[in-house]
Amino acid sequence: MSGFIPRNAEFESVVRESFRRQTLMATLGATIDRLEAGAVDLRLPYSAALCQQNGYLHAGAIASVADSANGYAAYTLAPVDTDVLAVEFKINLLQPARGSYFIAHGRVIRPGRTLTVCQADVLAHDGDLQVLIATMLSTIIVRPRTTGTEIS
Amino acid sequence: MSGFIPRNAEFESVVRESFRRQTLMATLGATIDRLEAGAVDLRLPYSAALCQQNGYLHAGAIASVADSANGYAAYTLAPVDTDVLAVEFKINLLQPARGSYFIAHGRVIRPGRTLTVCQADVLAHDGDLQVLIATMLSTIIVRPRTTGTEIS
Amino acid sequence: MSGFIPRNAEFESVVRESFRRQTLMATLGATIDRLEAGAVDLRLPYSAALCQQNGYLHAGAIASVADSANGYAAYTLAPVDTDVLAVEFKINLLQPARGSYFIAHGRVIRPGRTLTVCQADVLAHDGDLQVLIATMLSTIIVRPRTTGTEIS
Amino acid sequence: MSGFIPRNAEFESVVRESFRRQTLMATLGATIDRLEAGAVDLRLPYSAALCQQNGYLHAGAIASVADSANGYAAYTLAPVDTDVLAVEFKINLLQPARGSYFIAHGRVIRPGRTLTVCQADVLAHDGDLQVLIATMLSTIIVRPRTTGTEIS
Repeated sequence: MSGFIPRNAEFESVVRESFRRQTLMATLGATIDRLEAGAVDLRLPYSAALCQQNGYLHAGAIASVADSANGYAAYTLAPVDTDVLAVEFKINLLQPARGSYFIAHGRVIRPGRTLTVCQADVLAHDGDLQVLIATMLSTIIVRPRTTGTEIS
Repeated sequence: MSGFIPRNAEFESVVRESFRRQTLMATLGATIDRLEAGAVDLRLPYSAALCQQNGYLHAGAIASVADSANGYAAYTLAPVDTDVLAVEFKINLLQPARGSYFIAHGRVIRPGRTLTVCQADVLAHDGDLQVLIATMLSTIIVRPRTTGTEIS
Repeated sequence: MSGFIPRNAEFESVVRESFRRQTLMATLGATIDRLEAGAVDLRLPYSAALCQQNGYLHAGAIASVADSANGYAAYTLAPVDTDVLAVEFKINLLQPARGSYFIAHGRVIRPGRTLTVCQADVLAHDGDLQVLIATMLSTIIVRPRTTGTEIS
Repeated sequence: MSGFIPRNAEFESVVRESFRRQTLMATLGATIDRLEAGAVDLRLPYSAALCQQNGYLHAGAIASVADSANGYAAYTLAPVDTDVLAVEFKINLLQPARGSYFIAHGRVIRPGRTLTVCQADVLAHDGDLQVLIATMLSTIIVRPRTTGTEIS
């Protein structure tokens, strides 16, 4: 229970439909694990095709799912007929990304008319263990769909 | 000509060998476009499999190549028998990532014994046009290989 | 109760002594509000001498206390005869900084032998109201005192 | 010569007038060193009142002038009757801040209708020496003055 009141009653289907169009998420193998107003969790299974030089998940794969988790957390609170774009994000990589799967927990920390700020914690899961491996702060812009797709 | 003096005469082969082990780079389709002491350019062709919801390249794909470009720029200056890991990075997404291919220009802006700071500008290329679409600041740690793979 | 076990039994006096040497904190009027292993809160009263163009506290004043709160949170966990330096930080400014006083709540989110990552939430207080106005992620390096004062 | 075309012919006086209202700049001792369309340099003399625990300038003092340099660089390109606010910034501290004075060179790297991205390099000057001690990436929002002072 986040306490956020969505402005679009159809936010869940709108988010799921947009997520399906993100082909990078399918390429990486990411899926939506949880979705509520103000919070979206994405799940990324370990894959030998997504690694850095030592066999851990590449920071870019982790950043990709954290970025989408934050963007969709913002999108759950957006009005009808808007779209969201990441303006910028910063990620701290806290531990090597090893585990059987990873969950990026995106949540809104500051909703806004134009700009929304979100934070995603990424946990690695391995058997019963779970470890915080990264945290990301993102700034997301909410724009009318009619504006086109430019960052304004 | 960056003016940096590499501490490992074999830096080019060391970087190329490490890059080949980054399976995410192969999955995305990224290749090394240029490699010199203190600077590495990575090339990423547009692919419909790497997009966000509007058909532009996903910020995560852009961040992945910028992160590797910066990491390998740092690695060109690292001593023998070390490895590099990104500690954190921050990226500003300046324009939608559309184009036929993208080049992430990673360069060292502050070399260090333990920590190296790099910046990558990412340009989208479309015919004769090239547009700056993103810039990333990264902090990279250089560690002895014998330390293991932990972020210390 | 943070759950962190300090490596220096004298951490409280070591932190307080270092804080007294930070002349910027005295110039701004900041004081230590709370200090425990892994967490330091700094208090900054509103002052007409620390403002931006609209009479709110300048982002730089907010960033200064958040940076010190994070640095000292890291320092509470550092071994004897070490010092800490901020390597980098990123701050999101969430609301205008208005209020009668401000508390920067710095806490360790990832302790490390060399690098510690901290987050500071800054709250504005005005009568009974308190509002989250900023959040900062910081990377801090812990070094032996004998290393000198260089960022290594 | 930045190549930017200002939208407000009076940008120089508008920026200087706003800077005079930033009381933190006077408290720190910062002055405008250069001002043109798309670029603002601020000068900060060393002061024993602005230090961290080792007698170097505190990262917060450096961040304060870099933040204002970037904000005013953005403001030089803003239309009439607008104001600017920093949404977020990230700074890498590259070397200890020692020197007799410091120049924060703020410049626009991506002008926008709503959001402008700037980068500030901070150089320490000591006799004939100058050293890059920090670099900051900032996201700045440009808003109509009638909107009030909220980050929207």
